Amino acid sequence: MRSTMQDFPLTITHILRHGLEVYPDSQVFTWQGGSARSASFGDIVQRSASLASGLRNIGVGKDSRVATFCWNHQEHLEMYLGIPCMGAILHTLNIRLFPGQLSHIIRHAEDQVILFDASLAPLLARAGNDALSGVRHLVQIGSGDVSALDEVFGGEIISYDDLCRGEQFPWPDLDEMQAAGMCYTSGTTGDPKGVVYSHRSTLLHSLALLFAGTAAFAEPDRALVIVPMFHANAWGVPYAGFLAGADMVMPREFLQAPHLAEIFNTLHPTIGAGVPTIWNDLLNYSEDHDVDMSSVRVLLAGGSAVPRSLMEGYAERFGVPLVQAWGMTETSPLASVALPPKGARPDEEMDWRSRTGRVVPGVELRVVGEDGEVLANDGKSLGEFEIRGPWITGEYYNTQSDRFHDGWLRTGDIGTLDRLGFMQIHDRSKDVIKSGGEWISSVELENAIMGHPDVIEAGVIGVPDQRWQERPLACVVLRQGANIGAAELQEWLGQRVAKWWIPDRWEFVDALPKTSVGKFDKLSLRKQFGGEVQ
Amino acid sequence: MRSTMQDFPLTITHILRHGLEVYPDSQVFTWQGGSARSASFGDIVQRSASLASGLRNIGVGKDSRVATFCWNHQEHLEMYLGIPCMGAILHTLNIRLFPGQLSHIIRHAEDQVILFDASLAPLLARAGNDALSGVRHLVQIGSGDVSALDEVFGGEIISYDDLCRGEQFPWPDLDEMQAAGMCYTSGTTGDPKGVVYSHRSTLLHSLALLFAGTAAFAEPDRALVIVPMFHANAWGVPYAGFLAGADMVMPREFLQAPHLAEIFNTLHPTIGAGVPTIWNDLLNYSEDHDVDMSSVRVLLAGGSAVPRSLMEGYAERFGVPLVQAWGMTETSPLASVALPPKGARPDEEMDWRSRTGRVVPGVELRVVGEDGEVLANDGKSLGEFEIRGPWITGEYYNTQSDRFHDGWLRTGDIGTLDRLGFMQIHDRSKDVIKSGGEWISSVELENAIMGHPDVIEAGVIGVPDQRWQERPLACVVLRQGANIGAAELQEWLGQRVAKWWIPDRWEFVDALPKTSVGKFDKLSLRKQFGGEVQ
Repeated sequence: MRSTMQDFPLTITHILRHGLEVYPDSQVFTWQGGSARSASFGDIVQRSASLASGLRNIGVGKDSRVATFCWNHQEHLEMYLGIPCMGAILHTLNIRLFPGQLSHIIRHAEDQVILFDASLAPLLARAGNDALSGVRHLVQIGSGDVSALDEVFGGEIISYDDLCRGEQFPWPDLDEMQAAGMCYTSGTTGDPKGVVYSHRSTLLHSLALLFAGTAAFAEPDRALVIVPMFHANAWGVPYAGFLAGADMVMPREFLQAPHLAEIFNTLHPTIGAGVPTIWNDLLNYSEDHDVDMSSVRVLLAGGSAVPRSLMEGYAERFGVPLVQAWGMTETSPLASVALPPKGARPDEEMDWRSRTGRVVPGVELRVVGEDGEVLANDGKSLGEFEIRGPWITGEYYNTQSDRFHDGWLRTGDIGTLDRLGFMQIHDRSKDVIKSGGEWISSVELENAIMGHPDVIEAGVIGVPDQRWQERPLACVVLRQGANIGAAELQEWLGQRVAKWWIPDRWEFVDALPKTSVGKFDKLSLRKQFGGEVQ
Repeated sequence: MRSTMQDFPLTITHILRHGLEVYPDSQVFTWQGGSARSASFGDIVQRSASLASGLRNIGVGKDSRVATFCWNHQEHLEMYLGIPCMGAILHTLNIRLFPGQLSHIIRHAEDQVILFDASLAPLLARAGNDALSGVRHLVQIGSGDVSALDEVFGGEIISYDDLCRGEQFPWPDLDEMQAAGMCYTSGTTGDPKGVVYSHRSTLLHSLALLFAGTAAFAEPDRALVIVPMFHANAWGVPYAGFLAGADMVMPREFLQAPHLAEIFNTLHPTIGAGVPTIWNDLLNYSEDHDVDMSSVRVLLAGGSAVPRSLMEGYAERFGVPLVQAWGMTETSPLASVALPPKGARPDEEMDWRSRTGRVVPGVELRVVGEDGEVLANDGKSLGEFEIRGPWITGEYYNTQSDRFHDGWLRTGDIGTLDRLGFMQIHDRSKDVIKSGGEWISSVELENAIMGHPDVIEAGVIGVPDQRWQERPLACVVLRQGANIGAAELQEWLGQRVAKWWIPDRWEFVDALPKTSVGKFDKLSLRKQFGGEVQ
């Protein structure tokens, strides 16, 4: 039997309307370096309509892929709203991709228009003629020298202001399953793979950020959106902020600690979202400079594991909780938040917050063994995390993949899940080392080695071994002037990890190769040291 | 283009799984009078499975209507979970309905099973043989004399404990549009009308109660569920509490102030939900008795307009916010919450909180004039509220109605909506008085008259008038021993409302007729004094 409920679609258009009709005076600040400009939610919706009108005039229609190549700023938020709500698809291009990846993605998504920051023209030009010749229109935000594009793009470059001259746009009724946005993963193996968000998944994910038990976005908030809008929709913060009526602060390219400090000191955000590296820089900067965090109720960190020392640093210096959230491009991304459970003792709080996190309402998580069997949520059984829910991808865009299992996404992360829904990631499944039938976590080994005062960076990979199947190999970058070798590090590890985890082979290098998003590039390490690609 | 997102259904089964896998130790307390028994979420899920198994054994299947006739207690929560998650439909019968209404509803819904509290057997028996002869099974919760049912029900009465002997139940995959629950409105005109909630609407409504800007249910909470579970799903609190991991306290029939005080003093809830009358009783009781509200972060009030004096009373006596929420059976019910907007001055806070409320994310509200035109959100234009959203009904169950307009539900409430999404209800559309082309609010007149120290109750209706089309007529119940007449009350009103609002006709009566849920029965007043039914 069907219910009598309205068949009301879950769309980003609801976010746009709610922001306009309930919080017209909430503000979006764009940091200009030293000061900010601002626009109200009412203005933003008006300008989103102008954008949609302009895009329609240059041939953008339903399902057209409209890409952005921008920093976080007001205009990017206008694109976040205007493009999906007109029925087109917002494709956020990662400005940090390698040229080959960028070129591949533009062609694979069949981008029809690219809106780009003038200052990023040289980076965009690196996508090359092959990719850009398929693009019909380039739209430039801001002023600057865009001549780098002359050689790779034959058409006319329109200015954003010229494009956005329309006054009104009749937002169409949309199916909630309609594609709203695209984002490609920055996979370390093979070509980047596309995830296509729906209106439904985006609205539901936005609701999840409003829960008191997750990020608790609400109207009194002012959110500093450090995580890039080209990175998994800036963790959904722009949509959640608009739906909640929270002011937003967009820092553009001013992501260095002195700029962020100035933003905290002058605009007084209540919440911030960024990767651990950024928060670490800001904490270090605050040793010698004033950083006013008195307005802050919570800072969210994600994108890579958050060191306990960093959380402790924020607690001690500022009395501010730096809270770890976990997710992937494939999961929209919010999947877990590391907050202590009910009844946790104060002295246990940091132990709980150091775990990867606790699954949020709306998504479901399980741990699966090597034969595909579901393991117990006992905090001990080690397996691959699988995840499902209305904002989790069920496939990759036009790409075959073995990452899907019986309606669940295989996350590629290995770890444990306990009876209170807390997950603890031990390693990536492709990085974990299988030695003598047991698993060695490359991540834990790296952290243990990097704990040594003379070590700057360490990457651990598995190498084939006749007796043990695989053994760990450590690539280490030492501090300048350090005078230690494998023996000292093996001794250091002896007090920290199981004896059979200690690597036999050590390579000392000047630097570790990195991926486009700054993670250790283990594929390169394996090519160089591993004898074969695993 | 479709997204790549999983086609994951929004169901109550997710609530059940999430509660089990993330908050197995959260507790549900059932007040027994003087003390409480409790069960963990883990136990509750286990018992819900036993219930589903037992119901299947007596022939309950997909779409079967399974009714409840119960107070708020643990077993009622087991029914809330077990019945919809097995694919059947939970029909919560209002124990306060008049016998004729109860009989009509049981037959109209085609209830196959009724689970009832033994203590309520005499009330259920009043539904009569006509209704109960169509019911296949009665299931009795608790012990007591149920012989009142002998004359009206021929079958065997099963005990709940005997029914729930199964150990496991394989929860089926369900379509999110599948009916999950039914609730009939207690309309003052005509037969009660049925609303059928879906799994989708119930889950989405639960999410809305988790928002930081609405009720902010979260794991540290302990929710005292005073609003009956037969009344619009207890405002969705049981489902939201289970999804959030909040402890719950079910007060059974112990709804009088001394009992509630004891619950506050011993179980320390953080949040409570109930009608203004109950909160008023408790406030009065606290004048002479200890009531410990130190654990409370917020109390929710709804079901009828919350007097400002009551909110002020809770602020002054306990330092606790008593917050007004608005909704209807037709809206699941949460539609608005009266919290001050960003930037409101502290001295304005109570003004904002005295309004009906502000529309919550997920639903949309508009004000429509007499010709169906949409009016401005200017806080002045008076019209009927229309509402839409994924947890708003789009029709009544097997009943024709003119309450639906272009995809929106006509709420039957007249009022204004301002540019910040705040609604203010002035009157019910069928009660508002049209006089000389202008509207007179019967509710405002009643409140003004009841403000007179000698008046206990006042009901105002419109009566036909040749010159003015309609004029107000006031029915007044005076305090015993009061010695005033129409002239004194007209003078009283002269200082409080516009001169042309002052009623010309006055009737002094011993009591006002009431509906089954305790509201003034204006239909009776019109029949008695109005000359015709309007």
